[in-house]
Amino acid sequence: MAQVTFQVRRRVRFSDCDPAGMVFYPQYFVMLNALVEDWFTEGLQVNYAQFLGVRRLGLPMASLQCDFKFPSRMGEDIVLQLRLLKVGKRSLTLGVECCGTEVVPSVRWRAQAVIVTTSLADDRSIPIPADVLEGIARWQQHSGDKL
Amino acid sequence: MAQVTFQVRRRVRFSDCDPAGMVFYPQYFVMLNALVEDWFTEGLQVNYAQFLGVRRLGLPMASLQCDFKFPSRMGEDIVLQLRLLKVGKRSLTLGVECCGTEVVPSVRWRAQAVIVTTSLADDRSIPIPADVLEGIARWQQHSGDKL
Amino acid sequence: MAQVTFQVRRRVRFSDCDPAGMVFYPQYFVMLNALVEDWFTEGLQVNYAQFLGVRRLGLPMASLQCDFKFPSRMGEDIVLQLRLLKVGKRSLTLGVECCGTEVVPSVRWRAQAVIVTTSLADDRSIPIPADVLEGIARWQQHSGDKL
Amino acid sequence: MAQVTFQVRRRVRFSDCDPAGMVFYPQYFVMLNALVEDWFTEGLQVNYAQFLGVRRLGLPMASLQCDFKFPSRMGEDIVLQLRLLKVGKRSLTLGVECCGTEVVPSVRWRAQAVIVTTSLADDRSIPIPADVLEGIARWQQHSGDKL
Repeated sequence: MAQVTFQVRRRVRFSDCDPAGMVFYPQYFVMLNALVEDWFTEGLQVNYAQFLGVRRLGLPMASLQCDFKFPSRMGEDIVLQLRLLKVGKRSLTLGVECCGTEVVPSVRWRAQAVIVTTSLADDRSIPIPADVLEGIARWQQHSGDKL
Repeated sequence: MAQVTFQVRRRVRFSDCDPAGMVFYPQYFVMLNALVEDWFTEGLQVNYAQFLGVRRLGLPMASLQCDFKFPSRMGEDIVLQLRLLKVGKRSLTLGVECCGTEVVPSVRWRAQAVIVTTSLADDRSIPIPADVLEGIARWQQHSGDKL
Repeated sequence: MAQVTFQVRRRVRFSDCDPAGMVFYPQYFVMLNALVEDWFTEGLQVNYAQFLGVRRLGLPMASLQCDFKFPSRMGEDIVLQLRLLKVGKRSLTLGVECCGTEVVPSVRWRAQAVIVTTSLADDRSIPIPADVLEGIARWQQHSGDKL
Repeated sequence: MAQVTFQVRRRVRFSDCDPAGMVFYPQYFVMLNALVEDWFTEGLQVNYAQFLGVRRLGLPMASLQCDFKFPSRMGEDIVLQLRLLKVGKRSLTLGVECCGTEVVPSVRWRAQAVIVTTSLADDRSIPIPADVLEGIARWQQHSGDKL
């Protein structure tokens, strides 16, 4: 399972960077959230915007651990890569790695994130919806086939 | 000249939206800045990151006027389209329109922006650098050919 | 009426600034939004969070015009000052000025903003609610007394 | 040492919140950065803006661990409290707790952060500057006296 990954490539923007000319780290978590959005919508075929806006379900972060290895600078292209580490009853544990796109790409940061499925009606956790579980199975199968 | 445009398509992200579920308008200007970045780097073939980071030149906003017509919501795809309205001695006047991607696209907002070329050494305005002017001529010629 | 103002003082943060070491201008509009929040809650005695979250009313920006005069840098204290220029049927026109706090304060930017009162149920404009109009009258009276 | 703390109180803004009406978690780290800024400038009497802008020293995040316990909503007042857990040769380990301001305040999140002192010239770590160490000793002494 560890080999199945979902990744996006992204340019580091002026607006991502701080007065030191490097990505301001909270901005990395904005990118991480966009990665999860794309993984849901494109990888799992579960529309993220409908998940929140129509079905009124949430995906809040419960726990986050991140090690920052090397800075990223304006104009660079970076790649964020997601692995699904664990499927819990009401949570997903993700491993995310951000690398540069040099000939020998350097790791920028590595994070482990636990996101919980909730109902926005009362902010309580709920069992992972069936279509998310089905999407995960399909994504792992499909992506695994391509390896 | 008015027909020559540069445009990008972009998904409205969770992180772009406010508690009303719509794009928080300052976020539109973050998108507008990214549009100018891409126009410089891809349209004018003047590397934006080097323009600021290496050459230490700036492109601050001098004046901005924007009319907001219709809200954009999480998950929607929107298009930002840039026109060069005026080339001054030390400034560029841009017209930017943001539209949805419905069958009949609705205008979300229209802006007029004046950006100034400066030296970051003293924040003073400078004449528009030659490679920017050349890039503009090339872009207008090249894009005009494709119309 | 022009003399009645509402103002806040704010430190320019690391997170407000761009790789040029100056406030990234969309961040000024985040500050402008916070100014309107404080003006509602403290100036008009109309709780902004309840206005949106409980009463489900909105205050979207309809039109914005801003001239940027002088950059602001990390660590500086700046003052944002709001004037109510016009009370329409369904909109408020605000004049906002941002200045430094030097001995002779320099103007950083001046904006004119039109905000509309809406219902979040259908995003349509609504007449300005009675408590907002009463709050405006009270604020102008009260603040005028202190001049 | 554990009892010496530095804290700030802050209102949750419209701009901090996401379409679920709760603080978007990267925004908590923007607040955490502002807390470190204020701790340096006011607690340690080491001017943060000069530290970065004039002395060209950096304070990048090396490692971050955060557990999110309870959401924060627009209009709420929250308190961020910093403890210095460890002074390394080239790093500081901070414990940060964010609580509400209810009669019995609920914990919103708890983080442990390792920040490194660097030179912005080459992004390499440097020994913690003497004035920072002196500031820490003075802050612990002074704050400890008030307990």
